[in-house]
Formats: sequence, structure tokens, C-alpha cells
Amino acid sequence: MNMPRVTLEVLQAIRRSRKPVSKAELVRLTNYSLATITEHTEILLRNHLALESDRGPSTGGRKPQLLSFNAEAGYIAAIDLESTHAGVGITDLNCNILISESSNDIDVAAGPAAVLEQIKDLVLALLRNKGIERSQVKGIGMGLPGPVEYSRGLPASLSIMPGWDRYPIREFWAQHFECPLYVDNNVHTMALGEQMLEQDSKVDNLIFLKIGNGIGAGIICNGHIYRGSTECAGNVGHINIGHDFLCYCGNRGCLEALAGGRAIAARAEQMARDGQSELLAAILAEKKKLTLADVRKAVEESDPVAVELMREGGTAIGNVLASLVNFFNPALVLIGGGVSQVGDVLLASIRQAVYQRSLPLTTRNLSIQHSLLGEQAGIVGAAVLTFNEIMHMPFVNRELTFTYK
Amino acid sequence: MNMPRVTLEVLQAIRRSRKPVSKAELVRLTNYSLATITEHTEILLRNHLALESDRGPSTGGRKPQLLSFNAEAGYIAAIDLESTHAGVGITDLNCNILISESSNDIDVAAGPAAVLEQIKDLVLALLRNKGIERSQVKGIGMGLPGPVEYSRGLPASLSIMPGWDRYPIREFWAQHFECPLYVDNNVHTMALGEQMLEQDSKVDNLIFLKIGNGIGAGIICNGHIYRGSTECAGNVGHINIGHDFLCYCGNRGCLEALAGGRAIAARAEQMARDGQSELLAAILAEKKKLTLADVRKAVEESDPVAVELMREGGTAIGNVLASLVNFFNPALVLIGGGVSQVGDVLLASIRQAVYQRSLPLTTRNLSIQHSLLGEQAGIVGAAVLTFNEIMHMPFVNRELTFTYK
Repeated sequence: MNMPRVTLEVLQAIRRSRKPVSKAELVRLTNYSLATITEHTEILLRNHLALESDRGPSTGGRKPQLLSFNAEAGYIAAIDLESTHAGVGITDLNCNILISESSNDIDVAAGPAAVLEQIKDLVLALLRNKGIERSQVKGIGMGLPGPVEYSRGLPASLSIMPGWDRYPIREFWAQHFECPLYVDNNVHTMALGEQMLEQDSKVDNLIFLKIGNGIGAGIICNGHIYRGSTECAGNVGHINIGHDFLCYCGNRGCLEALAGGRAIAARAEQMARDGQSELLAAILAEKKKLTLADVRKAVEESDPVAVELMREGGTAIGNVLASLVNFFNPALVLIGGGVSQVGDVLLASIRQAVYQRSLPLTTRNLSIQHSLLGEQAGIVGAAVLTFNEIMHMPFVNRELTFTYK
Repeated sequence: MNMPRVTLEVLQAIRRSRKPVSKAELVRLTNYSLATITEHTEILLRNHLALESDRGPSTGGRKPQLLSFNAEAGYIAAIDLESTHAGVGITDLNCNILISESSNDIDVAAGPAAVLEQIKDLVLALLRNKGIERSQVKGIGMGLPGPVEYSRGLPASLSIMPGWDRYPIREFWAQHFECPLYVDNNVHTMALGEQMLEQDSKVDNLIFLKIGNGIGAGIICNGHIYRGSTECAGNVGHINIGHDFLCYCGNRGCLEALAGGRAIAARAEQMARDGQSELLAAILAEKKKLTLADVRKAVEESDPVAVELMREGGTAIGNVLASLVNFFNPALVLIGGGVSQVGDVLLASIRQAVYQRSLPLTTRNLSIQHSLLGEQAGIVGAAVLTFNEIMHMPFVNRELTFTYK
């Protein structure tokens, strides 16, 4: 049977409070009666999901029992896969990273079998390092750089990841771990990670915009990740902005064909060849090919051509975002991904375009910021995704320390 | 106290099933135990919200008691106000219209006091006609043609409705009725009305696009109306599409300044003056001013200039919608409002643009259709809004036949 909804609500109330709480406080937080709270906290204690803390200050009689969430009742393996690198972390059930490592010798083009083997070895090494048994891992979360059919855990149409299309990633992990695996587009996991940080400010509607080689949006709507009717919401990289560059999707005019990392590097290289920037030409002569890192270096040295490229990208992104802001009316827009780290001109241009093109009523309380978690967003988010799921799973026939009793 | 959540869930299960259900069926529909179902159906029967129907077929023992929703336990007054006309209806609690009337001598520019008085008289006349007492009206729902601060029931920044800004509409109705009043942007109410019709097809994510003088979107997200963080989501009429026409909002380039009804009429008039269409010029000579109705007439007579105007509007709307579809990934887009009724060329152009500019993955299951309810969407939707709200209200200190006992 599932963990009863009331038990789950009480557990979430204990977890969210972040400090030990009394049953009286839980009554206030949940609106359940003291008898109900007592019944369900006992279930949680019996299943080691809650712990009794030191007793709190007395308000007359016996000091009240204080309860806290047992974040070490299990662990989560969280994976953030990008096309050329991967971040892997082990977190507790509060999604705090206990240990993590980043690997730069990943090449998704090597195909899923080889890459998953590499990542599994990384996970096992981290577990050994922290003295955590495989059986203590209660869930594995994995973010991929492209669309995923979330309900079935299958990658979908990953043009930049040949060989991954519909690859049975769950089956791979099932050979090595007995816990469930969740796979999602890493724009979604990142949005979940950022949202966790925003819990106290009660931001229910946010857009996380990842600007890497591709451009995608993770949408938090009424407090929950929003995936859309065929699970491909947030696919903003192919919104047509009316230019003539060909995109790998086959269309011309896609946002990411102008403002994505690979597009910016390609345009910088063209401008270097055309002799428009001495600095970029010098780097190109040395390296034979320009990358986003080279553009970043040129921006840091105030090369006007590189700065203008970033400004142009920011304006294009900002114009698209202005439409989405008018439509979705979020309280917060967070900008992340590799391109967002290339100086401040991108964010400034995005802000300028959004505030110019959106209705004042819509942007009155809108905040547009850099990602709060930065490079950790993907790992934290994969853990948040996993935690949210395992808390709603059936509680029998799984080897969990907190098998529901 | 509020109606307990479980009672409400049982009530919704009875109501949604649309035909009499047995307690055994309710157990299956809600996952509650038979004891729980019995407890709560008794509450509903006592409060006249459920009725006992004829007993169903026996499966061996005594024939089971069948329950149905008492849609006439109360009535809803539903109002759809536009800038030049209003629709008013009385519905039962299933939001079926029992009687309605449309008034064309409304002028919102006359100010809220006069207009509300006119509408109130209409409501009272309809009630008299059906022999319904004021006290039997359990809620009033009202849609306005512009942004509304929903939680406070106050119109916000209605540039096309001078004098309405923050007018206390609730206080007006409280002088005449003892039931609660809900005010919302009528794009939202229309979306709710359409969604009710779609209940069986389980469309959880839809965009209702109202193309009148203004252009706005009502968003149903995960089955619920989505209002955004400052309650102005769906404000798509002012999305910048890069033209030079001045919009009443003060910006240039707004979608509705090209594709809204007033804009189309103004452009048709200009083209008539410029001698581009003999038909339009003839109508203008006769009438001194062109309206959308005149453009409609010209489209019906296959005037190429008028058809081209509608095609241009449809393409502009479709291009914006393509971006929103990539972002939001809805299952259904419904097109309503006065402009949508001007022939089929608009819908065809919208579809063409969306399917051309959105990702195939996103449009695989997307359907783009004319509004199902047509001119009744606003009235039905105002009733749906009201029903949803009163079912969640505290049940004391209100004169309801179903005061919670």
C-alpha cells in the first residue's frame, strides 16, 4: 500500500520546518487533530523517518516531545549529465550534497552503454568514499541534456545524443541497484533544485532558463514542476526569432541557433576569420577553432566584438522571454547554463529586453537573476526529483529501511 | 467550519459521474472505505446536495441505493461583460444554463455604477421568469474584459474600461444578494467553461485564446485555471511582434494592435480610403466608419483585401502561439472571441503558423479548434468559476440551503 496521504503530509511538515517541532506545532501546521498527529508521528518514528529530538521548553506541564526529519534514513545518487561532462553526487534525504565529483572525460556520443558504465563507477566510488552501502541508496535521479519521456524514463529525440533515443536507462541501473531510477530533462531537474532554495520565499511560479549549447526552460507552476501534455514543455530553444541561421533541427530562425553556446562560438569564429576582432583572430590562429570559453576570455578582456555577440544573444533571449513573461506571469526568472557565466552583459541585455517588452503589470514584482545553485543545480535537482518521487511511491516490495510498517 | 475535504471529494465523485452511482462505485472512484463513503454520503443527503435515486440492479442481495448530485440545490447567476454588450444567465449547480439573455445596449464607458445596475435588473428579471428566489442564488460569477485582481475581486488597469479601475464590485452585489461574488478576467472564465466541456477527454493543459478587440489567453494548467504570480497571466495581446502600429498601451508592435478586432477594422478602413478594395470603400462611403462586422461581410463576399487582412492577423497570432506552444506544450488550443467568427481563414492561418514553427514533438498530439461553447463560453465559465469557489467555502454564516450540518 501507499504511504497514507496524511502520514506523508505530517512527514512533509516535519521536514519543511527544518528544526525540531512539537506535536502542537504540527497540529497548527497541518490543521489535523492532536490524535491524528500522534497516530501518524508514531508511524514515522517506527519507520525511522522521524527522530525524537531533545525535548523543547515546557509551557507548564511536561516538556513536549520534539520531532525532526531523519535525513539519513537513506541516500540519493544524483546525476547531471551534459554532452561533454557529468556531475555526480550523493545526497541525504534533505537533498544536501554529502560528496560530489565532476567528470570531464564524458562523451555522450560514445553511446549510452559506455557512458552509463562510467557514471556507475563514479557513483560506486563516491559511496565507498562515504562508507554508504548500495542498499542505503533509496533512489537514483538523472538529468539528461534533452527531452525525456518522463513517465517511462526514456530519452526522446536527442539530436545531440545519438544512440540514446529510447535507450532503457532504468534497466541499466536495475542491474546494479535495487532502488527506483528517475530520468528527466536536466532543465527540469535544475528548476526543481532552484525551487528548493526558494522554498522560504514561497515562489510558486518560476522559469529556469538554461542557456548552454541548447536553450531550454524548466517551469515551476503552482509549486510543481510542469512537464506539459506530451512532456516536452519548456522547449524554447527552437522558438523562431526570424533570422537566417540554420538550426540542427532543420529550421531556420531558432533562438538557440543564434544565442546558444555553440552558435555564439561559431559566430565568433566567423568574425575572427572576417578580421573583425584582432583578439579573437589571434586565439583562432593559435587554436584553429573557437569555443565558448574563448569567447568568455575575449569578453573578460573587453573585446567589443565578443561583448556585442553576447549582447545580441541576450537581447534575442530577452525578447523571447518577454513573451513568455506576458503569458506565464512568473515571480522569478533564473538564468543558468554555460553561456550565462560569460560575463554580466548577457543578463543585463536579457533584463533590458524583458522590462522593455513586457507589461508593467506583469513585471511589477518580477525578478530576473542568475541561477542560485550554479553548477550544482543539476545534482541538487536530480536529488529533489528523486526525493519527491520516492515519498509518493508504494511502500511494499521495496527494500527500504523505511518499508512502511 | 469548511466542508471536510473528504465530503467534498465524495460530492465531486457523485457530480462528475453524471449518472446515479452506488456506494460501491464511490468506493472504487475515491479509494475510500465503504464506512467512510457511508458517513459522508449521509452528510450530503442531510444537506440536500445529494439525492437518492431509484435503486440500481441487484448483484444478489438487496438492490443498492443509488445517489445523484442535486444540481438544483441552488442556482448561480453568471455574467459575461464585454465592452459593448453583456450576457447574463441563471444556471443550476451543474453549470447548465436554465435561462439567459444578451444585452446589446451596454456601454462600459458609462461607468460601473450604471452598468452594474443594468445587469442587476437583468439578473432579477431572469430569476422572476424562472420563479427562483434571490435566496436560492448561491453565488454570482462575473467575467470582465480585462485584468482583474482576482483574490480581491477588483478590476485592475482596464484601459478600455475607464472608471472601473479598482471599483468595489463585490460591495455593489452585497447590497442586493447575500451570496458571494467572484470577478475574473473573462478570458479566464471562458477557459473554465471550455474545460468543463472537455472533462471527459481529460484535457489537463489547454490555452483558450480570445481574439476580440483585445487578445488574451486563459490558461488551464494541470486541470486548474492558472492566474500567475500577480494574477495577470495570459496577457498575450501586448506581446511584441515587431510592427510599427501604436497600441493603446503606449508601445508599438503589440499583437493586438495588428490582429485585434478594432485594429483589423481600422486597417480595413485605411485600405478602403486608399482605394485598395472597392467593396470596403463602398461600405465606408455608406457608413462613414468600418467595424469588424463590415470586414466579416467583406470576407463572406470573398473580398481579397479583407481575406488578406484576416490571413495576416491569423499568421501573426499563429507565430506568437507557436512560441507559447513550444513553451507550454498544451494538448488543446481553443480560439474564441469576435474575430474568430470572421470566416475560416483566421483559424487556418493560425494552424499553419503553429505547425510550421513549433517542434513536431510538441505538436504531435496538439489540436487547435474553434471554441466549443462559442458565445456561451463566458456565461458557462462564470458559473463554473463560482461553483468551484462555493464548494470550497466555509459553510457557516451563509444562508445556503446546504448550510453544513
